[in-house]
Amino acid sequence: MSLRYLSARLAQQIDDELMSAAGAFSLDQLMELAGLACAQTLAKTYDKDKYKRVLVCCGPGNQGGDGLVAARHLSMFGYKPTIYMPKPGSKDIYERLHTQCKNMSIPTLGSDEDSLRGALKSSDVVLDAIFGFSFKGPIRAPFDAALPMLSASSLPIVSVDIPSGWDVEAGNEAGVGLNPDVLVSLTAPKEGVRAFRGQHFLGGRFVPRSLEEKFSLNLPAYPGYEQIVDITEATQKL
Amino acid sequence: MSLRYLSARLAQQIDDELMSAAGAFSLDQLMELAGLACAQTLAKTYDKDKYKRVLVCCGPGNQGGDGLVAARHLSMFGYKPTIYMPKPGSKDIYERLHTQCKNMSIPTLGSDEDSLRGALKSSDVVLDAIFGFSFKGPIRAPFDAALPMLSASSLPIVSVDIPSGWDVEAGNEAGVGLNPDVLVSLTAPKEGVRAFRGQHFLGGRFVPRSLEEKFSLNLPAYPGYEQIVDITEATQKL
Repeated sequence: MSLRYLSARLAQQIDDELMSAAGAFSLDQLMELAGLACAQTLAKTYDKDKYKRVLVCCGPGNQGGDGLVAARHLSMFGYKPTIYMPKPGSKDIYERLHTQCKNMSIPTLGSDEDSLRGALKSSDVVLDAIFGFSFKGPIRAPFDAALPMLSASSLPIVSVDIPSGWDVEAGNEAGVGLNPDVLVSLTAPKEGVRAFRGQHFLGGRFVPRSLEEKFSLNLPAYPGYEQIVDITEATQKL
Repeated sequence: MSLRYLSARLAQQIDDELMSAAGAFSLDQLMELAGLACAQTLAKTYDKDKYKRVLVCCGPGNQGGDGLVAARHLSMFGYKPTIYMPKPGSKDIYERLHTQCKNMSIPTLGSDEDSLRGALKSSDVVLDAIFGFSFKGPIRAPFDAALPMLSASSLPIVSVDIPSGWDVEAGNEAGVGLNPDVLVSLTAPKEGVRAFRGQHFLGGRFVPRSLEEKFSLNLPAYPGYEQIVDITEATQKL
């Protein structure tokens, strides 16, 4: 039985069920575990001695929150993260997560293009937490300008859940999305990343078996007590 | 510079600062990371093939919350946890964490002594999350009866933060506490565990450098992206 790829609608439904009264998870919990998995994926693939300076790009939604959590953990791991978050989300949680980063002396760029351009020159790797599974095109400002700049930098990119600019179901058909080297899918991979051919990890080890069975997710076994699992082989044999 | 051992008061102050408006952490976040570290410590020290059945003993305070989080992660790791929580805490978060465990089909014992006695016979290892750093004796019912039963079971015990029954500063002077094989201290070890001579881990990798410096904690380096670090040697060379 192979891993199930999720439609945008199913991904949303699983999130909703986890955070419903019955599921009982708080956004704080899920975001903490998701962001930790993102940071661990980057740490596993880009050694901190060679790729110390991480540009963490955060979008305005929950994906951006995952990015803020990841930035904090990366700092704990000994990386030097910098946050690019030109459109901070309005939920209270993003402000708290951002304060936690500031308390770790993690700098945040100005939202202008020059700041981003300068930061790309002094970064070793990008964590792309701009758009997640609720993304619907077209890509709006300032990200319409930012994505091409990230691509042009030729820095290695680790994308969270869905590479930014890709349609959650149709993938990068339009050709305007990032081309990450590494992808960390959360909960289960999305339809749009079937064609992704880089290194692929899965994080979000918090789906109860009952929910996994209800939606026939056929999740892979995570090793030991790890929060991430390499699914490159499982997703590319098709 | 050696690791600092915390008084009960200082442990409380660090917790308060982390969760203050300035620290910006939510209890959900810290408990998730603490409970994950507890589960990982047990998984690192007691192999799931030989020690599958874990009796997770939860007290009425935040320590019990850590235990509930750990039970959930242990279940994710492939263990078979059972919860003993005869005095559930009243905070809403404990109820949510307990619901998450129920959704994972993790059973909870009745609060009577016979249930505990029976469960001890069919468990391989105990996770002791009964009393934490805010514990003040004397030990009240039903834990005054439960602790001797846990000790008499001769099951291996992994204690969280402070072995239950130990004074947070004076340790097990009164001799009524558990004698765990493994201890996972959270944030930093407490004064009372200076004399602990089992395997000792540290978890709670979320203290910002500024807070670490303010209180001269001299925390050890965690390996890679791990959430726990073995401090047995560092704490026993004194």
